[in-house]
Amino acid sequence: MKALIPIANGSEEMEAVIVTDTLRRARWEVVLAGLSDGPITASRGVKLVPDAAWEQIDPADFDILILPGGTGGANLFMKHDGVQQALRDFDADGKWIAAICAAPRALNKAGLLERRRFTCYPGVEEAMPNLTRSDESVVVDGRLITSQGPGTSFEFALRIIAECDNPAVSDEVRRGMLL
Amino acid sequence: MKALIPIANGSEEMEAVIVTDTLRRARWEVVLAGLSDGPITASRGVKLVPDAAWEQIDPADFDILILPGGTGGANLFMKHDGVQQALRDFDADGKWIAAICAAPRALNKAGLLERRRFTCYPGVEEAMPNLTRSDESVVVDGRLITSQGPGTSFEFALRIIAECDNPAVSDEVRRGMLL
Repeated sequence: MKALIPIANGSEEMEAVIVTDTLRRARWEVVLAGLSDGPITASRGVKLVPDAAWEQIDPADFDILILPGGTGGANLFMKHDGVQQALRDFDADGKWIAAICAAPRALNKAGLLERRRFTCYPGVEEAMPNLTRSDESVVVDGRLITSQGPGTSFEFALRIIAECDNPAVSDEVRRGMLL
Repeated sequence: MKALIPIANGSEEMEAVIVTDTLRRARWEVVLAGLSDGPITASRGVKLVPDAAWEQIDPADFDILILPGGTGGANLFMKHDGVQQALRDFDADGKWIAAICAAPRALNKAGLLERRRFTCYPGVEEAMPNLTRSDESVVVDGRLITSQGPGTSFEFALRIIAECDNPAVSDEVRRGMLL
């Protein structure tokens, strides 16, 4: 499995790093794609060097598009034409999409949350009128996986592995991380 | 509170980033100090830009020294004269020391684990003859705090805040992270 994870200034570093590390433990290929040049400064000041610039990759090469949260990063995902187009393309192609914390707003901006069950960081749904947040840690609706925040990041990543790949692999990775 | 967190190639990125982010949510000053020049490549390939090089900081300016795990990073902490001296100085000065996963081996190298209660990633204790690992997620013995691995990183960070700073602040940060 190949996962594309955009990161931008203000992305939540725990959410980005927990998902990346956990998927790599499942032997997935993961690319952290930066929306700006050079290292990004995440929401609590951790500086991450992307594996590639967004412009250098082709989203069509990936099986799943995963958006970490962080208000600043999610705002940039809402404004970025490439990320918005990739979300619509993944949805149209029946490929997996996942988002956590504030990032479901970027899915909504791309028109992907109507008539879908989803969750997000409690309160973030107030910026999405007419939509109702499910109160589960992780919600799977078709090929859309959403989750709530830093404390649900491990469950989010392990569920992505279980749903898109193999529950046994997910369990093995869980045990190795002592969860 | 000022926390010094050394990072090196092979450090476990989730452990380093979860602790850094969680402590900053408690309004602690945290410095990720790199043992080599430029970004470090963590255990699952995430590239982190240190806040400073180890040589640029004075460990005496900090209240707590926290070692993330990852076998490769912990091996470098065992070999690094500056980190080993800082561990002995913090211990002699009665300042806080914390380590998770494979990093308690670096504490043992500095002579800090004899007659102390501690934990580490299960199996890591086999490299430390005559020492017995406690089977708790987080162990506090005096001003020494140890923990087991990625899945216990949030509890490790929250316990550090509760013990060294304020349990109410720790609880507030926990709730904000949805734990």
